[in-house]
Amino acid sequence: MTEENHENLEEKLQKVIYLLQKYKLVEGFVRLQDTPEPELIESIIRKRNLSSLQQALDKLHPADIAHILEALPLEDRMIIWGLVKAEQDGEVLLEVSDAVRQTLIEDMDSEELVAATEQLDADEIADLAPDLPFDVMEDVFRSLPTEEREQLRAAMSYSEDAVGALMDFDVITVREDVRIEVVLRYLRRLGELPDHTDQLFVVDRDEQLHGVLLLNQLLVSDPEATVAEVMTRDTVKFQPDDKAEQATHAFERYDLVTAPIVSLDGKLLGRVTVNAALDFIREKADLEARNQAGLSEEEDLFAPIWKSVRNRWAWLAINLVTAFIASRVIGLFEESIEKLVALAALMPIVAGVGGNSGNQTITMIVRAIALGQVNKDSTSKLISKEIGVSIVNGIVWGSVVGIFTYALYHDMQLGLVIALAMMLNLLLAALVGVLIPLIRIKLGRDPALGSSVLITAVTDSGGFFIFLGLATLFLL
Amino acid sequence: MTEENHENLEEKLQKVIYLLQKYKLVEGFVRLQDTPEPELIESIIRKRNLSSLQQALDKLHPADIAHILEALPLEDRMIIWGLVKAEQDGEVLLEVSDAVRQTLIEDMDSEELVAATEQLDADEIADLAPDLPFDVMEDVFRSLPTEEREQLRAAMSYSEDAVGALMDFDVITVREDVRIEVVLRYLRRLGELPDHTDQLFVVDRDEQLHGVLLLNQLLVSDPEATVAEVMTRDTVKFQPDDKAEQATHAFERYDLVTAPIVSLDGKLLGRVTVNAALDFIREKADLEARNQAGLSEEEDLFAPIWKSVRNRWAWLAINLVTAFIASRVIGLFEESIEKLVALAALMPIVAGVGGNSGNQTITMIVRAIALGQVNKDSTSKLISKEIGVSIVNGIVWGSVVGIFTYALYHDMQLGLVIALAMMLNLLLAALVGVLIPLIRIKLGRDPALGSSVLITAVTDSGGFFIFLGLATLFLL
Repeated sequence: MTEENHENLEEKLQKVIYLLQKYKLVEGFVRLQDTPEPELIESIIRKRNLSSLQQALDKLHPADIAHILEALPLEDRMIIWGLVKAEQDGEVLLEVSDAVRQTLIEDMDSEELVAATEQLDADEIADLAPDLPFDVMEDVFRSLPTEEREQLRAAMSYSEDAVGALMDFDVITVREDVRIEVVLRYLRRLGELPDHTDQLFVVDRDEQLHGVLLLNQLLVSDPEATVAEVMTRDTVKFQPDDKAEQATHAFERYDLVTAPIVSLDGKLLGRVTVNAALDFIREKADLEARNQAGLSEEEDLFAPIWKSVRNRWAWLAINLVTAFIASRVIGLFEESIEKLVALAALMPIVAGVGGNSGNQTITMIVRAIALGQVNKDSTSKLISKEIGVSIVNGIVWGSVVGIFTYALYHDMQLGLVIALAMMLNLLLAALVGVLIPLIRIKLGRDPALGSSVLITAVTDSGGFFIFLGLATLFLL
Repeated sequence: MTEENHENLEEKLQKVIYLLQKYKLVEGFVRLQDTPEPELIESIIRKRNLSSLQQALDKLHPADIAHILEALPLEDRMIIWGLVKAEQDGEVLLEVSDAVRQTLIEDMDSEELVAATEQLDADEIADLAPDLPFDVMEDVFRSLPTEEREQLRAAMSYSEDAVGALMDFDVITVREDVRIEVVLRYLRRLGELPDHTDQLFVVDRDEQLHGVLLLNQLLVSDPEATVAEVMTRDTVKFQPDDKAEQATHAFERYDLVTAPIVSLDGKLLGRVTVNAALDFIREKADLEARNQAGLSEEEDLFAPIWKSVRNRWAWLAINLVTAFIASRVIGLFEESIEKLVALAALMPIVAGVGGNSGNQTITMIVRAIALGQVNKDSTSKLISKEIGVSIVNGIVWGSVVGIFTYALYHDMQLGLVIALAMMLNLLLAALVGVLIPLIRIKLGRDPALGSSVLITAVTDSGGFFIFLGLATLFLL
């Protein structure tokens, strides 16, 4: 890592964009000339522009190149991608988002893809695998040494939300009967340690994990002591099928840097690093934000229009169905609205505030479930608390809306009806806001997915029904 | 860290709840007896229950105790909090959420608070400081050695979203002219290294940072080499006023474990660890999820009702105002609705789908801004892309809604009007969805805060106005 990397990322992006514009300007000029052979002087300028762009890129960390590719429109992105050094291709592909990765892979032929992939570790290849063409994966697979081939097969076998999918195989193992001095000599002979090595793994002949030797302990221990005397026997460890979500919580709670992954029978398989955990947390948070807004997948900022349309299709369709239902609920009361048209103007207030309040409740509950704070004993407490909150809110906001209505329409009864409707809809929002996530978790579903759409559907249709129903009963 | 910690967190919580119930059962029984002196046998049972609860707690990591406290209703939480060992109080206070921390602090007297706080490092005290009473902080301050007092003052001086707020002072420094062997001896004499030490910091007499010595390098280097020969000179470093958000991105991009923090003139001040970065990312994601749903602050799951009401008040009020505006927009067209009551049933569809589509756009843009992917050159590309998407969506969904409307009301013109209104409202949603965050960032505001409420306000009122306006023009 060089000092270059600390230069503000924004500046790096601006610099590349500047050099790119310069290059494109001359390119455009040459094309305008309409001469089959560009002049010598132009060709020199073009080469110089290209090489200064190349130089700027060569100095960048793969993660920074990935960032720049994400920020560029498709055409510019492809020019830059063509200039990235072949030996960095693999790393860059790993760092970009799924959506941008597809655009880059489409631009490469099989040979380039195989070359880029071969530079990576087995666990990294497994991350790329879903995006690679079948024949490329076959070639890569064949080119790997047996051990890595096994690792790749293992890494690809875990589901995306299991700890196994975060695993890498960069472990250094030692035996417990050797002396610290021998370990130190062994490390010196290795010449280089894997990134994030904060501990060595103590295993026996059968690869059973007996404990870990923290580098911090290794460094402060008497060289004459044995590993067994210094090592930590009880350590946080995971099995490959453990939930990745739970594992990342453990990284946060216990401030881990790495943790071993062991098989059911105690064999050391690999490790997870805090940076894999960090990436997982970020991706999970992104996923939730997208779901909240109704985007199905990660979307390349500069994706072609039809791709974006497809990405947003599903949720818009669901939303349309719930809107149709709400519309039919209103349709039931068209006669009432005809008689008292103020109902039409007022009904969105009841529905809207109910939706907002329901979203508050459901967000609280979904988060508490994710953190493991909700259990049988607390469920009834939660429900009664949310109902309490909704009653207070109902009285306050119901009154405000009632007074607003009276002030506008000078109709006391209408004011009372809308106040009552607000209270009932907020009560409905609270109940459903607690029950939807609890029921979904009972059914083994993700309580967060589409929670906002669901609760809004209930409070919209419910709100219209309650308000128009009460109005029909009492006012007409 | 013990094996206990790896026992499933859920099981630990269940165990404590079980022991707590047992304890409370006997307590309740004793109270029912109505005898001033409980029987001897009862008193023995009570003691045994209490001590098994105590034992279970003593074995837990402070982060696990914090988790259990978060998951318990107020009354139970206080019983458990009373049983936590005094020497763990400080760590537990650090680990719980702000909302729960307040309930715990209210339960402690000044002396207990001072004792709990004094066990912590300066940077940790700074984290607690905003929640502690003034006199407690004064006492703590006075009791600290001069160096820590200075550190505390420094740590408290940084704003919450600056790197300085994530800083700790657990740095080990070495000089560049010493030999590796000497460094190794020095570490051995220290006897213990700070958590997360993955590198030592190389400074001169004036505390100027010259580079870092990675433990990984230290371990594999020739003991006779000097630090200067082995150290890394160019390293990612931060200044205390750098944005914490940017720093956490650097941790992700460059897979850092720790990074030095230096003053403007290059003096080493402290370091950031990946775990501080991890906590920051999690809190930021939580904050965004809460803002999205309209919750002002972190809310204790078992907060008293009035506290929760206050927490949700602000956004509900804002929502009510936007609902009032939408209501008045409809009010403008009451005559039209009276003549054609179908308009009332259909108008929520136009508003709802527009809101959904606008939220998709704004979420994309806000995320791209947060990742630094939006710049002057890409703005116009983004706008034209979103407009393109909205036109396609408008044609598709507009047709669907138009056909639905025709099928229901057998009115071709009404179908055409609603189809046109859908298209225009989706166009409005796309434009405003791109412009709101861009304008807010120009004004130096957070583009994410309340973005959903804002866009929904525009697409609601706008949708009603467009649909009812077109209907009035063409149908009546």
